[in-house]
Amino acid sequence: MAPFKKHVFVCTTGKTCPGQGAEEVLSELRKEMMERGLKKVIRINKAGCFDQCGNGPMVIVYPDNIWYAHVQPGDVKEIVEEHLLNDKPVERLIYDERGRITV
Amino acid sequence: MAPFKKHVFVCTTGKTCPGQGAEEVLSELRKEMMERGLKKVIRINKAGCFDQCGNGPMVIVYPDNIWYAHVQPGDVKEIVEEHLLNDKPVERLIYDERGRITV
Repeated sequence: MAPFKKHVFVCTTGKTCPGQGAEEVLSELRKEMMERGLKKVIRINKAGCFDQCGNGPMVIVYPDNIWYAHVQPGDVKEIVEEHLLNDKPVERLIYDERGRITV
Repeated sequence: MAPFKKHVFVCTTGKTCPGQGAEEVLSELRKEMMERGLKKVIRINKAGCFDQCGNGPMVIVYPDNIWYAHVQPGDVKEIVEEHLLNDKPVERLIYDERGRITV
């Protein structure tokens, strides 16, 4: 029924994510999938705005329902190794709505 | 942590979904959210290709991890009322990879 083990969405639209490096994060995620032969197991997708503008680049991992905020390209390897491959979400990057930036 | 009760993704890119009416399905979903005052509870997003071309319009509901195939605008009200509001996935629309169309 669900063709992938994990489904990762990166907001690449909206008011702020594009200017905060969302495309770079997306590229880095795709590069990791390619290099590790994970393209048929984990899907990386662009997505529209998550309505949390100012807190990007934002990355969501489903079906785990883990939202990451302010993700930098340098964080991607940790997300892949800890969370996507070992099911341990990267706590320091998890989005906390209490610290939400509003733009 | 997760700002929405449900997060719905509609593939609006790739080889086939755009020509199969994906934008119409997306519009219908957004119209339903607007009319029912659900915009802050359920998020509807466009997404890139799910790599299941030929089986669209494709709609995924997370965190439930329910994939729907060949969704028509006329199916949207049922998805909203049965699944998004009452947690009963619409069985007849669920994507079955065994019946997958390959393009």
